[in-house]
Amino acid sequence: MSKMRSEILSQGKILAEAIPQQLHDAEAVRKVLGGQPIRFVSLVSRGTSDHAAAYGQYLLQYANGLPAGLATPSIHTLYRKPLRLEGGLVIGISQSGQGTDVIETIEQARAAGAYTIAITNDLASPLAQAAQLTIGCYAGAEKSVAATKTYTTSLSALLCLSKALGAPLEDLAGFEEIPELVETTLAALDAPIGQYAASLSDATELVVLGRGFQHTVALETALKLKETCYLMVIGMSSADFLHGPIATVKKALPIIMFGAAGPTSPMQADLAQKLKTLGADLAVIGSDQELLAQTKVAFPTTSELAEPLQPLLTVLGGQLLSCHLAEAKGLNPDAPRGLKKVTKTR
Amino acid sequence: MSKMRSEILSQGKILAEAIPQQLHDAEAVRKVLGGQPIRFVSLVSRGTSDHAAAYGQYLLQYANGLPAGLATPSIHTLYRKPLRLEGGLVIGISQSGQGTDVIETIEQARAAGAYTIAITNDLASPLAQAAQLTIGCYAGAEKSVAATKTYTTSLSALLCLSKALGAPLEDLAGFEEIPELVETTLAALDAPIGQYAASLSDATELVVLGRGFQHTVALETALKLKETCYLMVIGMSSADFLHGPIATVKKALPIIMFGAAGPTSPMQADLAQKLKTLGADLAVIGSDQELLAQTKVAFPTTSELAEPLQPLLTVLGGQLLSCHLAEAKGLNPDAPRGLKKVTKTR
Repeated sequence: MSKMRSEILSQGKILAEAIPQQLHDAEAVRKVLGGQPIRFVSLVSRGTSDHAAAYGQYLLQYANGLPAGLATPSIHTLYRKPLRLEGGLVIGISQSGQGTDVIETIEQARAAGAYTIAITNDLASPLAQAAQLTIGCYAGAEKSVAATKTYTTSLSALLCLSKALGAPLEDLAGFEEIPELVETTLAALDAPIGQYAASLSDATELVVLGRGFQHTVALETALKLKETCYLMVIGMSSADFLHGPIATVKKALPIIMFGAAGPTSPMQADLAQKLKTLGADLAVIGSDQELLAQTKVAFPTTSELAEPLQPLLTVLGGQLLSCHLAEAKGLNPDAPRGLKKVTKTR
Repeated sequence: MSKMRSEILSQGKILAEAIPQQLHDAEAVRKVLGGQPIRFVSLVSRGTSDHAAAYGQYLLQYANGLPAGLATPSIHTLYRKPLRLEGGLVIGISQSGQGTDVIETIEQARAAGAYTIAITNDLASPLAQAAQLTIGCYAGAEKSVAATKTYTTSLSALLCLSKALGAPLEDLAGFEEIPELVETTLAALDAPIGQYAASLSDATELVVLGRGFQHTVALETALKLKETCYLMVIGMSSADFLHGPIATVKKALPIIMFGAAGPTSPMQADLAQKLKTLGADLAVIGSDQELLAQTKVAFPTTSELAEPLQPLLTVLGGQLLSCHLAEAKGLNPDAPRGLKKVTKTR
């Protein structure tokens, strides 16, 4: 079995071990930040971690009411422009803790008077040292170049942070069930996603869409497919796709939509119908029954979790697809061409 | 001549007429916002306007020191979650002023106590009515579905806003020369970009990259190419490209890099070398001599403008390429399949 597949399948167990430690780390965050007015939240990261950051942006807005956005590292690292960051919260995410741009941005933010938090899988890393507070991933060593378990543990770290900052319980309903539901979802999706991957083995182009929280899953899945399968993949918001990129849709283009039951459902179901009319080959992953009903290539996940938690389940479908499709194409998912485990950019 | 090409070529004249009116609008903004502490900036928009928003994010950080990020409309329009926005500045950009998600976000932000500004080509539109303040595009009626002159006038509107909020003169050096330099750049690029487009007529895949301010030009060019040429295009930050997507590069893959002389130059030149080693067919548009020297397919633009202003010139190359390539492929750039001029999403 590839390292990637074995790491994907380990995520239930990993999360069961990680979350209690992350809750402990988040308690230290609560002691510093609890009750403080937070001016805004800025998240900084690259690659897969940047999609955890996008998730954090949705989560901290949805559950904590905080204005949140993604940073542009070049402002800090290349242009070296000072920003008025005092009283803001700047969160750096890097599984290795060695991303130069993330470290420099956190250093500058801390010097400018912002609260700073590192989310990293290496508690001794320069990023953890640079930030005032750290929440670990506790994912163990990740051997596959394509990050999977450090991604889902970054999401759970953000959930623990949101909880510590006072998220209402109903927004995080099902939190305690995450490890078990990850385990059962992996068991349910592995074989059918493997079959779907085999049907895509000749594909060279792919589109991955989602809205709201599932938008971030679309971004992450598109990246995984690029990394392991070398496909030209458009991954974006279902709403933004309507503003131009839908012109690319042609007969038999494979399109994967991620969807959770909830407020995004009607617009996603409308879009799915439009895409079928244009002749696209649609697949759906998620808990949105209305959306799942649009296609026979449907991979249902449970709606037992509150919507903000569902990316932890749907992303498993994207990870499995990337791994299985690489193998169906005769590629080694553990050794993407031209990539190393740690990429440093400034 | 296609409407798109004629609108592209009109931009020098349009900007000469628009900028004085935008400076006037921005003066009204200065009277309300000047000297006020702005908690953060959030920009909300879709499609092409979202790439103007991304430009605004860089500009207001670089030249005004304000923490700035892009909004996620679903939080406001679908999830309907209240955010703590009081004292923030929320900027909505929509050429038609009819984008439902942009209007609703601005309405909620205004109700929550944020300063709100609309940037739109229709001063009587619902967006202009929803926001406290408006800066017009003054681009005249845009007949091509693919937006060009409303894009560059959105950039100039943001420049006028940055000026009104106290941007240092040196950061905007060359501001008065914009219309004339747009005119001469269009004249210089039109024919050579047309030749380059002809050489790409069989391409089905393309990558467009840039860093810093030019990152936003890469995003916009990738969208234009999707809209008018139906190509699968990856458009992203040169730094993020190194964190995974570089695995997609294969022999003869066309890659277009945008680059401005300045702090982004060394990392971009390094990346260009790496891409050539991987066999990509590289083209460069911009004022970065080090980057231009990496390939014979080089489209130089002047460095007479300060770096934050250079997207107004380099994006012209992307617009011309999209228009010429559509024609080289036998498509009508004025009628992208499946698209209307006004797209409304929530």
